Amino acid sequence: MSEQQPDPRPIGIFDSGVGGLTVLQALCRRLPAESFIYLGDTARLPYGSKSAATVQRYALNAAGTLVAQDVKLLVVACNTASAQALPQLVDALPLPVLGVVEPGVRAALATGAHRVGIIGTEGTIRSGAYQANLVRLAPKVSVQAVACPLFVPLAEEGWWDHPVTDAVARHYLQPLLDWGVEAIILACTHYPLLLPSLSRVAGPGVKLVDSASAVADAVVARHSRLLRRTLGKGSVRLQLSDASASFLRVAAAILGSPSSSVELVDIEQAPRPPLLTTVAGRASSLRQESHET
Amino acid sequence: MSEQQPDPRPIGIFDSGVGGLTVLQALCRRLPAESFIYLGDTARLPYGSKSAATVQRYALNAAGTLVAQDVKLLVVACNTASAQALPQLVDALPLPVLGVVEPGVRAALATGAHRVGIIGTEGTIRSGAYQANLVRLAPKVSVQAVACPLFVPLAEEGWWDHPVTDAVARHYLQPLLDWGVEAIILACTHYPLLLPSLSRVAGPGVKLVDSASAVADAVVARHSRLLRRTLGKGSVRLQLSDASASFLRVAAAILGSPSSSVELVDIEQAPRPPLLTTVAGRASSLRQESHET
Repeated sequence: MSEQQPDPRPIGIFDSGVGGLTVLQALCRRLPAESFIYLGDTARLPYGSKSAATVQRYALNAAGTLVAQDVKLLVVACNTASAQALPQLVDALPLPVLGVVEPGVRAALATGAHRVGIIGTEGTIRSGAYQANLVRLAPKVSVQAVACPLFVPLAEEGWWDHPVTDAVARHYLQPLLDWGVEAIILACTHYPLLLPSLSRVAGPGVKLVDSASAVADAVVARHSRLLRRTLGKGSVRLQLSDASASFLRVAAAILGSPSSSVELVDIEQAPRPPLLTTVAGRASSLRQESHET
Repeated sequence: MSEQQPDPRPIGIFDSGVGGLTVLQALCRRLPAESFIYLGDTARLPYGSKSAATVQRYALNAAGTLVAQDVKLLVVACNTASAQALPQLVDALPLPVLGVVEPGVRAALATGAHRVGIIGTEGTIRSGAYQANLVRLAPKVSVQAVACPLFVPLAEEGWWDHPVTDAVARHYLQPLLDWGVEAIILACTHYPLLLPSLSRVAGPGVKLVDSASAVADAVVARHSRLLRRTLGKGSVRLQLSDASASFLRVAAAILGSPSSSVELVDIEQAPRPPLLTTVAGRASSLRQESHET
């Protein structure tokens, strides 16, 4: 098995918008030879305030758009979609699917904290997915979760280090601080952008856990067989369902350089149901692979 | 013509979410015998941060969903859709279509202000629709426009009278106040919810113009022929494209009573293009009417 060729196909990543680029960046650093297709569903963002049924439909739609482009692995870089749609995606797709919830929980537990706070969108917190993973992996750890609906708009507005963001953070985090929280999971891929304000409000005694690098670690640990081992330089394609001016601004800040180009994709016009054809296509190519190896 | 029967069909109103309910409320007050169908496209909100092409597609989609329910008149109670998609809707639909832009501009001019500020979403401000209407109707009036992306999330979060909202309002409004603004058009149907904070920050010398009642006046002035003249009590149907917990909370606050029921509609599953069939259906019924009268 160790002699086999690495799979040359790209890794697919999706998020409702720009936040998942923090995960893309972590993956690019860990896997510089890989190629990535990043899809931001900017036409329908945010996911965090919408119902589980709608988030599941959108997630299957976005995943189908990437599967149709023959990705070898799917990273759900959106906490809301990971929390509310991961079982549906795993069931529907004939390829490995990784979410951000479990890696984030493991990273929080690795800090040694006994009182763990979770901050995320309404959808993520309401789903209970983080709470359930924490209880499963560390039954003795105490958990408190707080929905922070204004953090995504503040991050999108670029108020990453701003007195208003400090005031909003104090409002949301004070109950966790009063409780004696030791580590807080940033259960939304937008939140690392707000770290200047969040660190100031949380203070030095509280660890702020960003799941982006934990997700990259999980990809390497679980799917090394699929990954490129060459030293070559991979590529990044950015795809959006809506042309978004703020995306490019925030993308440049996260990725550290202006994005070369962004493609517009029509997620809604994808064949309905989009997965039927793509699943069949992938299933047959998977069978071929297993014959060849 | 004055002897003719009033048209018994409902009036259709749509917005991306909950904000347009301020327009619905004004219409209900002016036209208590009318029936209304209000559609909130909560599955795809907000419109304000999205591109003109996407807003036009969504607006045609939402309008098509209402036209398929045989509404007699369409009120676009969303500033972003009014600013970016009204010509497309007027062209595509065989029924009267009213937006909120021109009524809001007329209401601002009625205050006698010579320096008029416009606050709205990024999409509304970027479209230039308010600015163009002001220049057309009152070439000597000076105009300044400011996009305020955080106001909708603050309104949705319910922070209508809150120190953080005050701070955000100061940030957005200070350039207008420094300029000597005399009237500010609330060019987003969410913003009237924030009036406690906005009034405090703007001060007593600045008139804050809410277009909701101006829209109701425009409906009565331009389409009295279509309206019910009876004294009976009309009905309100609320339809959403996504089940939204925050919608019901905000709806109760705007309408002054808990909404009896909300229907879920599948806007995306509407036939594509949704207008072809509905337009044909309406066109034939319009022809029948003209034979009858």
